[in-house]
Amino acid sequence: MQPIRAVQWSPTGDAVRIIDQRRLPGEYIERDLRTLDELCDAIATLAVRGAPAIGVAAAIGLVASLLPFVNEDPRLFRERARAHASMLAGVRPTAVNLPWAMARMSALVQSLHAASGPQLLDALRREATAILDEDRAMCNAIGANGLAFVVDGARVLTHCNAGALATAGIGTALAPVYLAHAAGRVVHVFANETRPLLQGSRLTAWELARAGIACTILTDAMAAALMRAGEIDIVLVGADRVAANGDTANKIGTYAVAVAARHHHVPFYVCAPWSTIDHATSNGDAIVIEQRDPDEIRLVHGAAIAPRDAVVRNPAFDVTPAALITGVITDKGVYRAPYLFTYPHG
Amino acid sequence: MQPIRAVQWSPTGDAVRIIDQRRLPGEYIERDLRTLDELCDAIATLAVRGAPAIGVAAAIGLVASLLPFVNEDPRLFRERARAHASMLAGVRPTAVNLPWAMARMSALVQSLHAASGPQLLDALRREATAILDEDRAMCNAIGANGLAFVVDGARVLTHCNAGALATAGIGTALAPVYLAHAAGRVVHVFANETRPLLQGSRLTAWELARAGIACTILTDAMAAALMRAGEIDIVLVGADRVAANGDTANKIGTYAVAVAARHHHVPFYVCAPWSTIDHATSNGDAIVIEQRDPDEIRLVHGAAIAPRDAVVRNPAFDVTPAALITGVITDKGVYRAPYLFTYPHG
Repeated sequence: MQPIRAVQWSPTGDAVRIIDQRRLPGEYIERDLRTLDELCDAIATLAVRGAPAIGVAAAIGLVASLLPFVNEDPRLFRERARAHASMLAGVRPTAVNLPWAMARMSALVQSLHAASGPQLLDALRREATAILDEDRAMCNAIGANGLAFVVDGARVLTHCNAGALATAGIGTALAPVYLAHAAGRVVHVFANETRPLLQGSRLTAWELARAGIACTILTDAMAAALMRAGEIDIVLVGADRVAANGDTANKIGTYAVAVAARHHHVPFYVCAPWSTIDHATSNGDAIVIEQRDPDEIRLVHGAAIAPRDAVVRNPAFDVTPAALITGVITDKGVYRAPYLFTYPHG
Repeated sequence: MQPIRAVQWSPTGDAVRIIDQRRLPGEYIERDLRTLDELCDAIATLAVRGAPAIGVAAAIGLVASLLPFVNEDPRLFRERARAHASMLAGVRPTAVNLPWAMARMSALVQSLHAASGPQLLDALRREATAILDEDRAMCNAIGANGLAFVVDGARVLTHCNAGALATAGIGTALAPVYLAHAAGRVVHVFANETRPLLQGSRLTAWELARAGIACTILTDAMAAALMRAGEIDIVLVGADRVAANGDTANKIGTYAVAVAARHHHVPFYVCAPWSTIDHATSNGDAIVIEQRDPDEIRLVHGAAIAPRDAVVRNPAFDVTPAALITGVITDKGVYRAPYLFTYPHG
């Protein structure tokens, strides 16, 4: 099952093809990105977004960005490959998948120190395709591992977009929802609109409608009241980085949902690929939180919704402590507290 | 101290003059409302809003709407006065102040059954002015009663707008802030933007800037993360209706703030005039919650931020149970649990 393809190779194999998520739901536009500048801009402006998707996009995009240089001196070409990977890895700081994918590509460059340009490029292309394929398989595995939690008639609350648009496959938090729907279960998703950038109302509602899954949009501050009314059975959210102790960085507002879920005894699950678990970060306090442009809050579609010089806070993410997380649903299985993600295979 | 006048008599005394709150912060426009249609429309579309302010606006506006009819048959005129009051009382269902003010005007009409049209109008004019003056005095009293909670250096979180723009005076939740500022204390207000209609970023941030009080705008889902970081000392919110047991209806999202405040041991105070307490409503379950147009969520300034036919929830208010409320700061004093607002003087 593949509702949409947020990230893929272009048909000619010389670019990464993305759905431009800045334009949804008004316009459906696919873009082929080739140069390093195009890639960095697309990641920084959230044309492509979602922790797994930006890792895949950077891997494929890295190959595309190197194509014009394949015939230069091999040593220079390897330097360039490492430099491109390093630049891409730094465009957004919080999601671990981006540096993870770039580290994997760089390690390959390192290991093939005697290869010609075309040989190295070919190896990088295979590695990017492997990252893409693994991402799709990862989504399906998370869906399968989470399927038992999305029973027939389930009312699922989610925050931001951790669906097909956030990955190369069927998503992370929405993967169990897609599989439950495919299995004939009735599922109703409540999507927090997710200010400031409205990934819930713009993206989650759009991709679920496309898949024929019932979805109701909420403003972010409504979710607690719905929980009090007994209208939410389970919370499923994605993750940008999971620390070794289970503390999880995800879209700003996730923590508020977790607090409300705990208050109302609603189970709260994080859905994330194993690659999102950062074994090197002991706990959430060590996670760097990206601070974004204040105008994301002061303007909506260019219209002022606040005084022009108003002071705002705009952290892109917050950290939910492990104590509030009922379980972490990964492609390798479901983990529960105490989380001990210290070793590569936990 | 009077930072702005959200509701007042027009200089010629034949209209209610309001600041059009639909246009802030982009444009500052005062409007004089005279006819019943103009009044109902202004209240329904939130040109004038805030529980106390709409009560005052309806009282003054009722007089203005009756002016052209003062010389008709006195019995017909009394009927008309009651009919106008009854229509105005029903424009919005949740705030108690609107029906409270209209009941007070209707009771006067009832009591003056032998009066001529001009005599009745004169009495109604004095009553409307009394409601206006009492509202201003009420704001000052709430401010004085809440002043002790806003210490020097206080970091105050508020939701929606319960400031000068929501009353005829210096507000309810913001009254203690205004008085603390006037007393030379440093106060920093964190204003939840308050989706969907953004009264926090559009109105609270605007009126505080005008008064020279520091304000930082947050998206609604950020507040919990700030509490976790120890950046919020106290929550002050207004109320649209307080039930006899202390359960409080206020802008949607207030409940989520209360849950987060409890989780983080941050004191949570409701600031409301005594007239907001509905002794006849035993608890929050009996409060009717206004459901508003889905397009308030699907559109911002006319731009689509969700699929056109997306299903949304749009309750204007939620109910915070008394158990989560540290205290209710009224013009008559500060009340704490157990709340027993059963008798007129509690």
